[in-house]
Amino acid sequence: MENGRTFTAHDAAVLEEIIFHRRDVRGNRFLQTAVEDDILDKLLLAAVHAPSVGFSQPWEFVVIRDAAIKQQVREVFDEENSRAKDLFKNKKRELYTSLKLEGITEAPVNLAIFYKPSDEPVLGQTSMKEAGRYSVVCAIQNIWLMARALNIGMGWVSILAPEKIKAILNAPQQNQLIAYLCIGWVDGFLSQPELEALQWERRKEMRSVVYYDRF
Amino acid sequence: MENGRTFTAHDAAVLEEIIFHRRDVRGNRFLQTAVEDDILDKLLLAAVHAPSVGFSQPWEFVVIRDAAIKQQVREVFDEENSRAKDLFKNKKRELYTSLKLEGITEAPVNLAIFYKPSDEPVLGQTSMKEAGRYSVVCAIQNIWLMARALNIGMGWVSILAPEKIKAILNAPQQNQLIAYLCIGWVDGFLSQPELEALQWERRKEMRSVVYYDRF
Repeated sequence: MENGRTFTAHDAAVLEEIIFHRRDVRGNRFLQTAVEDDILDKLLLAAVHAPSVGFSQPWEFVVIRDAAIKQQVREVFDEENSRAKDLFKNKKRELYTSLKLEGITEAPVNLAIFYKPSDEPVLGQTSMKEAGRYSVVCAIQNIWLMARALNIGMGWVSILAPEKIKAILNAPQQNQLIAYLCIGWVDGFLSQPELEALQWERRKEMRSVVYYDRF
Repeated sequence: MENGRTFTAHDAAVLEEIIFHRRDVRGNRFLQTAVEDDILDKLLLAAVHAPSVGFSQPWEFVVIRDAAIKQQVREVFDEENSRAKDLFKNKKRELYTSLKLEGITEAPVNLAIFYKPSDEPVLGQTSMKEAGRYSVVCAIQNIWLMARALNIGMGWVSILAPEKIKAILNAPQQNQLIAYLCIGWVDGFLSQPELEALQWERRKEMRSVVYYDRF
């Protein structure tokens, strides 16, 4: 049997640095510089090499560069976000309102990512149906890390009504929107996650979320 | 503002190699060699640096080394898997039955990973509630890649009844099981995903899952 590639301690350190320096990037950071096709292909290639339950590869990707489509998606965001604001109170509401939370029209490339369910039973998905959607999320995290390694910024916009995005993109009825991503070159990366720096939430101690053998 | 770390083309190539060589590892590959605490900490540190919606960090990890607990989990797998077999017909059923699909008792370390919902509204999670669970999946993919970079094998077992696993681990009622992982040193890594090599499923052409502007 093959023993496979052996990675070095330096390789693991490179991955650790990429993981530590990955950020969620919003519209105030994106440059208008075009994202070249070969860069986009590297992101998509990383995506399709993600793990998937039963090797089902249940993903579909829509690369959006059309300004009119971005504008329609932006309107869906605005509607959802104005409702979201009302859920936060006092100082949190003030801070929420001041935040730039997406980069839909500013990012040269948007990427809508769908889960396409299988008509047949899928190995490994018979007890936990959600494993199919989780495979798609693994692909998204691969894209995010590869983008960071290429010094490309990416933001995940989740303040959206999935059915409205599906209608805009003419998506097949059975497809489920998993994520809507904004991708582009940036003027820099923050050293800390913005919500950490602004004290929206504190970073949890690693030990506080780890249990041994049982809760 | 900070410009952040700039990664090189070599760094991106290292990440690509890690992504391409990651495999789902089952019980026939794990060695009995202990997984040292500092290795486990590197995996957990990669996990807690995953992106999370609204910086909510909604994850909890249970590190399982206790043989009796593993055995109980294995029994849940056996029950679910014997039901799953019946869903596949003819040749697929034969192949399914011949596959080793987990490494629960063989892997020195099991890792159960939970989503812990917040009692408060979470920024970014107001329109798509599932974004919380997707954050946990991003943490899992970070673990998987970091494990591969450290030449550690990992398998994701999804043929499990989540409520039974929660009962075994004494998990809080509101927690949701996202994944159950088997982790350990291995005798090697397959050059292709096993289900691809066995022609259970074919690898899809990247172009066949990419659309431009709309479906």
